[in-house]
Amino acid sequence: MLQLSNFPFNTLKSAPKVSDNRSTSLLLQGGYIRQAMAGAYEFLPIWFRVLRNIEQVIREEMDNAGYHEMLMTILTPREYWETTGRWDIPEYFKVPGHGTTEYRIAPTNEENVTPILWEFIQSYKDLPCCVYHIQKKFRNEKRAKSGLLRGREFIMKDAYSFHTDIKDFEVFYEDIKDVYMRVFTRLWLGDDTVIADADGGAISDKNSHEFQTFLEVGEDIIVQDSSWYSYNLELASWIPDDKNVWEETQKMQYIDSVPEIVNMEKMTKYFKSPDWQMLKTVIYKLENSDAYIWVVLRGDLDINEIKLWKFVRWKYDDTFVLASEEDLEKIWTVRGFISPLKDSHLKVDFYWDNSLKTVKNFFWWANALAKSTKNVNISDLNIIEFGDFNEPKAWFTSCNVEWEKLTFRKASEVGNIFHLWTKYSKPFGLSYLDENNKMVQDVEMWCYGIGVSRLMGVMAEYFMTDSWIMWPETVAPYSYYIIVMWEDTIKQAKDLASELEKSGESVILDDRMGRKDGFGQKAGDCELWGIPNRIVISPKTLELWGYELTKRGQESEIIKL
Amino acid sequence: MLQLSNFPFNTLKSAPKVSDNRSTSLLLQGGYIRQAMAGAYEFLPIWFRVLRNIEQVIREEMDNAGYHEMLMTILTPREYWETTGRWDIPEYFKVPGHGTTEYRIAPTNEENVTPILWEFIQSYKDLPCCVYHIQKKFRNEKRAKSGLLRGREFIMKDAYSFHTDIKDFEVFYEDIKDVYMRVFTRLWLGDDTVIADADGGAISDKNSHEFQTFLEVGEDIIVQDSSWYSYNLELASWIPDDKNVWEETQKMQYIDSVPEIVNMEKMTKYFKSPDWQMLKTVIYKLENSDAYIWVVLRGDLDINEIKLWKFVRWKYDDTFVLASEEDLEKIWTVRGFISPLKDSHLKVDFYWDNSLKTVKNFFWWANALAKSTKNVNISDLNIIEFGDFNEPKAWFTSCNVEWEKLTFRKASEVGNIFHLWTKYSKPFGLSYLDENNKMVQDVEMWCYGIGVSRLMGVMAEYFMTDSWIMWPETVAPYSYYIIVMWEDTIKQAKDLASELEKSGESVILDDRMGRKDGFGQKAGDCELWGIPNRIVISPKTLELWGYELTKRGQESEIIKL
Repeated sequence: MLQLSNFPFNTLKSAPKVSDNRSTSLLLQGGYIRQAMAGAYEFLPIWFRVLRNIEQVIREEMDNAGYHEMLMTILTPREYWETTGRWDIPEYFKVPGHGTTEYRIAPTNEENVTPILWEFIQSYKDLPCCVYHIQKKFRNEKRAKSGLLRGREFIMKDAYSFHTDIKDFEVFYEDIKDVYMRVFTRLWLGDDTVIADADGGAISDKNSHEFQTFLEVGEDIIVQDSSWYSYNLELASWIPDDKNVWEETQKMQYIDSVPEIVNMEKMTKYFKSPDWQMLKTVIYKLENSDAYIWVVLRGDLDINEIKLWKFVRWKYDDTFVLASEEDLEKIWTVRGFISPLKDSHLKVDFYWDNSLKTVKNFFWWANALAKSTKNVNISDLNIIEFGDFNEPKAWFTSCNVEWEKLTFRKASEVGNIFHLWTKYSKPFGLSYLDENNKMVQDVEMWCYGIGVSRLMGVMAEYFMTDSWIMWPETVAPYSYYIIVMWEDTIKQAKDLASELEKSGESVILDDRMGRKDGFGQKAGDCELWGIPNRIVISPKTLELWGYELTKRGQESEIIKL
Repeated sequence: MLQLSNFPFNTLKSAPKVSDNRSTSLLLQGGYIRQAMAGAYEFLPIWFRVLRNIEQVIREEMDNAGYHEMLMTILTPREYWETTGRWDIPEYFKVPGHGTTEYRIAPTNEENVTPILWEFIQSYKDLPCCVYHIQKKFRNEKRAKSGLLRGREFIMKDAYSFHTDIKDFEVFYEDIKDVYMRVFTRLWLGDDTVIADADGGAISDKNSHEFQTFLEVGEDIIVQDSSWYSYNLELASWIPDDKNVWEETQKMQYIDSVPEIVNMEKMTKYFKSPDWQMLKTVIYKLENSDAYIWVVLRGDLDINEIKLWKFVRWKYDDTFVLASEEDLEKIWTVRGFISPLKDSHLKVDFYWDNSLKTVKNFFWWANALAKSTKNVNISDLNIIEFGDFNEPKAWFTSCNVEWEKLTFRKASEVGNIFHLWTKYSKPFGLSYLDENNKMVQDVEMWCYGIGVSRLMGVMAEYFMTDSWIMWPETVAPYSYYIIVMWEDTIKQAKDLASELEKSGESVILDDRMGRKDGFGQKAGDCELWGIPNRIVISPKTLELWGYELTKRGQESEIIKL
């Protein structure tokens, strides 16, 4: 039982102003948290109990499903990160040790879990297998913001599963998806949490998802179609709107232009044609080889690099960056006048955005200063692969998808499932013996995150009113709040509290008897801490030989003592 | 229920050799832990359950006593450490952020808890108050060793209490001492764990203690007298043995010596007298001022700097280091011929070890090259303060304390209580209003540690045999281990396991049916994981319509199914 007379973590009279987050300000007022520095919060006792309750829900559901909880290290050796090529990521902290030794405080634990399982996975019989832990993680955020939603230090439940192949995963996936939804349901978020496709549907990897909770202040926009299929707007794919497909196909021809028209705006003015009729070209270089990715799309659209990455990572075991001036020289093209290269010994792969299918008679550069082409058509191009690489735009509402049947809602990500492919198992040499006793090298991995401290922030936001946080009973810091209004009744109140505790309830006993500790203060704290059941023992209730019990959302009643 | 057929963390056939720690090797064999790097261990699922059980015992006892659990940050701002002057301690990690920003991953949390409580402690009514958390800590150890006993990353339960004065603490102390002893009793360490004085008894601060568990491989030596008063040998104080106190006191005189006798050995040879008759002098400089500490003791003894520190920290708000050659020049003395300074404008405080009281007619230097004094006696000295600064020696057995009545046992520290004085409350300006509404600045602080991962290591060592770890029932990873010897009985075994779980037990179901999974393997794993209750279901037990139950330390019995 928590006796408030001996509890220093008082609530404040009013909510401190916090610019970017309404719930953070309420949490500060409630003595839930205290900021140690931007992006790192102290969890004070009341908040810590909410944390433990949420962790317990997650733990129970994970354990029931047969996943194994463990605890990996925070301090990790540099070699792990060099093995996977992730040592130099600037958002990950490097920690100097003695001499030239450096460690990393882990932002995620693929680099721990893979070498651990390398020691233990021996045969196909050990697969599938899923382990998890709940622990703090660290990211060197340039600007930490939004209270608990994006911190330098945060608590994460990260699970990792290992599979012989994608089919093996697909069976397993149904289980863990259910586990996640049961968790969110027990946290009373179930009705407003959807599984959103994290890769835009059209692309073939159906094995990565986000769990998104609808929230007015959410940072994502979730699109749902009439069948309730959900996806993140940022990654959504569309059937592109037809522009001039009814026009006659003209014959392609070279034309003179001027050196000044080095961007889309100048080009549309010069040719007196709409931007969607221009071809836009963007060139990326693979980071660790001399190969290039050449993406072409409609001039009114931009590239969404996440979509592109998801499309091409099948082919390259590498990441890409925007090509530099020197890179462009290497492949004999000119910035502002990029078009397919004349000739080269370098490897260049072309990707054509689906939007090109909806326009005829394009304008294009000619890969030479002050030269252009007009009436380019798909048939003129040496098409390799179409795909969906464009960034959805607000004016896509005019697309020919049945937009009016879609719903758009703001949401916050509370969990995710990512296909890691063999990105970690390969460099660590994770292998197993198959049924024929043959060594197999490629262990498919997935990871499953729930940002626990982030989830707490989302829940505070979701369950808050102006002065309450209506915690679900499953996570409320205590289940009962006993208000004592008269010093002489503290003994009765304590007995009642002990009785409630014996029956498994947790109790705050508000036995503060100072001058300022009036009923208003006490009832206010009960609300601010979101305690679902309130009991008042006062001279008035004692006249009726009892106490007043108010269960949240119900009428008060007098219970005989 | 843990089904071993789907559990990759198998035990190994034999224990890997680990040079400095026998239990670590058994823990590696048992798939309990895996080393990520020197000083940082992965806690695999079985070990994680032991951890959670131990944490739960600690938590329950702390909560019952009314201490408030919270969770402070790991990443802490540099300013906190600069406030207390601890930023540059080399054993503490510094973590570079963006630009010139640096953080610290906390090795302990005085620097968090004090500014937190600064916000909440307002009046004397808020005191005493005690908060705690259980979390990983980090130390930049030069050489991490001894498995879990001294790591770069370790789990600590650290509590902090705040008091108006030492009297307030003394009442409180009885409670928390009981809490600690209840914890160790519930962990079955109670009979072999003692509260040892951490400051040598003779010195006046009786408010710091160590909890030491007797252990053959322990790194400390605990001395107990006939009244069971215990103390750490390293910090023990003695009534010094009389040497020549019966001799006549001679008159002090200056004598010539030679420049070569710059150490004790040469001096004893030159004067043909025992080393205990020489005066030894050691000079320390305060780190942040030009003040000096000048300690004199018997020539056969060495200084124990911890004792010295505990004696002098009352006076100086500063730490000290051995004086350098230049320092010695400043105070006009000569290394090898140190004796009280001639004259100086510098502040020099003298401290005289109690051992000087037991000898007469000392030899001493004369603070000049090749000059000495003989027949120095206490009456010749300008005594300021006597104290106990000497390091206990093995041959102290000849002292006139009743040594034969003392017992000496090796032990490992499992907990401690330290008086922090106002070392942290002062720089952070922690204050409160007293009963007269007057601001009081000096809040006395204590801290209370239990190194949880260290305790786990000590327990593994304490409860291990050659191939078992006999976990107490309170911390065993599971309470039942069911050995299934016949595939057809897996259903019966599962039903039994479910039944046990319903009654609150935790169960390992060893349903492995591979060729190597014979009874020996299974029974061995049950022992290695220290499961207190073993059940065997085999064709043999089924002939008797039952299963065989073996409770640890008891005869097996057949229970009807």
